[in-house]
Amino acid sequence: MSKLNHVTSYLETNKLDLAIFSDPVSIYYLTGYHSDPHERHMMLFVMPDHDPLLFLPALDVERAVATVDFPVAGYMDSENPWQVIKSKLPQKTFSAIGAEFDNLNLTRYHGLQSIFNQAFTDITPLINTMKLIKSRDEIEKMLVAGEFADKAMQVGFDNISLDVTETDIIAQIEFEMKKQGISKMSFDTMVLTGNNAANPHGIPSTNKIENNALLLFDLGVETLGYTSDMTRTVAVGQPDQFKKDIYNLTLEAHMAAINMIKPGVTAGEIDYAARSVIEKAGYGDYFNHRLGHGLGMSVHEFPSIMEGNDLVIEEGMCFSVEPGIYIPGKVGVRIEDCGYVTKNGFEVFTKTPKELLYFDV
Amino acid sequence: MSKLNHVTSYLETNKLDLAIFSDPVSIYYLTGYHSDPHERHMMLFVMPDHDPLLFLPALDVERAVATVDFPVAGYMDSENPWQVIKSKLPQKTFSAIGAEFDNLNLTRYHGLQSIFNQAFTDITPLINTMKLIKSRDEIEKMLVAGEFADKAMQVGFDNISLDVTETDIIAQIEFEMKKQGISKMSFDTMVLTGNNAANPHGIPSTNKIENNALLLFDLGVETLGYTSDMTRTVAVGQPDQFKKDIYNLTLEAHMAAINMIKPGVTAGEIDYAARSVIEKAGYGDYFNHRLGHGLGMSVHEFPSIMEGNDLVIEEGMCFSVEPGIYIPGKVGVRIEDCGYVTKNGFEVFTKTPKELLYFDV
Repeated sequence: MSKLNHVTSYLETNKLDLAIFSDPVSIYYLTGYHSDPHERHMMLFVMPDHDPLLFLPALDVERAVATVDFPVAGYMDSENPWQVIKSKLPQKTFSAIGAEFDNLNLTRYHGLQSIFNQAFTDITPLINTMKLIKSRDEIEKMLVAGEFADKAMQVGFDNISLDVTETDIIAQIEFEMKKQGISKMSFDTMVLTGNNAANPHGIPSTNKIENNALLLFDLGVETLGYTSDMTRTVAVGQPDQFKKDIYNLTLEAHMAAINMIKPGVTAGEIDYAARSVIEKAGYGDYFNHRLGHGLGMSVHEFPSIMEGNDLVIEEGMCFSVEPGIYIPGKVGVRIEDCGYVTKNGFEVFTKTPKELLYFDV
Repeated sequence: MSKLNHVTSYLETNKLDLAIFSDPVSIYYLTGYHSDPHERHMMLFVMPDHDPLLFLPALDVERAVATVDFPVAGYMDSENPWQVIKSKLPQKTFSAIGAEFDNLNLTRYHGLQSIFNQAFTDITPLINTMKLIKSRDEIEKMLVAGEFADKAMQVGFDNISLDVTETDIIAQIEFEMKKQGISKMSFDTMVLTGNNAANPHGIPSTNKIENNALLLFDLGVETLGYTSDMTRTVAVGQPDQFKKDIYNLTLEAHMAAINMIKPGVTAGEIDYAARSVIEKAGYGDYFNHRLGHGLGMSVHEFPSIMEGNDLVIEEGMCFSVEPGIYIPGKVGVRIEDCGYVTKNGFEVFTKTPKELLYFDV
């Protein structure tokens, strides 16, 4: 069943006669058409008994028409977009309408209210559920994105030197990736040295790479419409024993989670598998984020691997496992792989070794 | 008056006792604290009679506390964020609340409704109006961002060759910028050769640079919290006369707009100054977007320089002037500078020449 058929079937089951998608990633997922309209409006209207309608800025119509095989309508900046939508949709009264609550802002909501004038039902769960289980074809693309992340990590490793800064290494990584045809990283590449890594959301800067310290890389690429995401923390010179102990504790937590993932366990249990290792060692307060996040077309999606999430893991789900320990002023470590759930376990997309790697400088 | 005082004064005037900001750019603008919380929640609560409260993910608290001088509250992924907000705000009943309708999605709106249970007033106009007029300090930062855009453009020019692709040149540009300390381009750099430039939102790819054709560069950088944005279209080899004519027509339209900008004219009149030049020459249908957009901390903000916008231009406004003519399969040209409105005119942030530049390859 095509993805759009899946949507219309959901609409019929839930007695909705119109679904409005406003998230560019949802529209990409459902139609193959990808664009970021910024503050302009782009929406996909799906109905059980009519062709869908892709509504977007006039300047994007040409490319959209070349991508999708159903009607496309553009609007000029000078037009009232809501009236254009009204004129292009079937001239009937819609009785029950679904919209993406996680994406639709109040301005667009009120614009749509000016033509529909009724409460909407949230269809975020529909699109999240559809995206939750990846097909073999999607997993193949994510394996390619993972391979590129491994290559990017290797570029990072190859450029470790006391003469360069965090941002120098980032420049080299992204340059090599662009040269290999990657147009976009999944997110701003992170290279964090020493105490800068002790901040879980530290910002790379012109800090020179420190010796006898840990160095953290967090990166991913976008390719074929899918993302990758991985973190490695490596040793530059000879970090002290405490730093190595914290590294090994993080790795133990990481592997404890990886090794127990299979269909039937819950997201909360996976989080606990890693968290309990760190808590037992007395560092629970320094692991102040969830264990992982789903990824696919976007680098953060469902499932959320966190305390209290009773979601039962199924084959085809894709997510990160990324425990971290951040002790301000002392040490920061995170080890992250993303992977997909198989019939019996979990296979990671990225193959860079996880034991502590040493770089002499 | 500080920006937060400006907000509280607006609240008093408009008889609101709470403002909720959810756009990370607004929060950056008002507080100096910059973060993208992705699907997690970050909100700034401003009240006329209490300290503000910055609410964000627990893992960002440390950095926020180091940036702002008022209370910060974090929440863990496992907590109900709305109940945390309720417990951290003054224990009183708010009677009239403002929120950013252009940013607040329905999920967050409903979450806030669970604790406030009342209709909100849109304060998007407040923040847009505050950001509309740039201070001298902001303009100085934008001049720096413009200088870097000029440097980036020069890197692009230096790498024109028939042996390289659009993405090769992009890789070089972004590498050189990163090496110079620019952590982020304002948007995905565009290098489009020949017919690929004839699509106003064409996508750079592995197309080899064409000879005897036009080559379009659209780029900008983010630095000091502010953005730049510029487009140049140059000649590679000897394009035919028609292409040169279209270039010169676009330049004429560009200069017609630049030369008439001053306080007192309207945004619509500026758009018309450029558009009428292109329309009179018979190419109006091939200029299918507005003339320009505001920019500042983000690369698209107010004012919108378009047909029908009666906004009166004032000193300190910053925006782009970017007419384009895109004739599919034949030629694409866009010439863009951003600038700021002075007491008597308009000064551009970018100084790269605008006459048609020729590159022999």
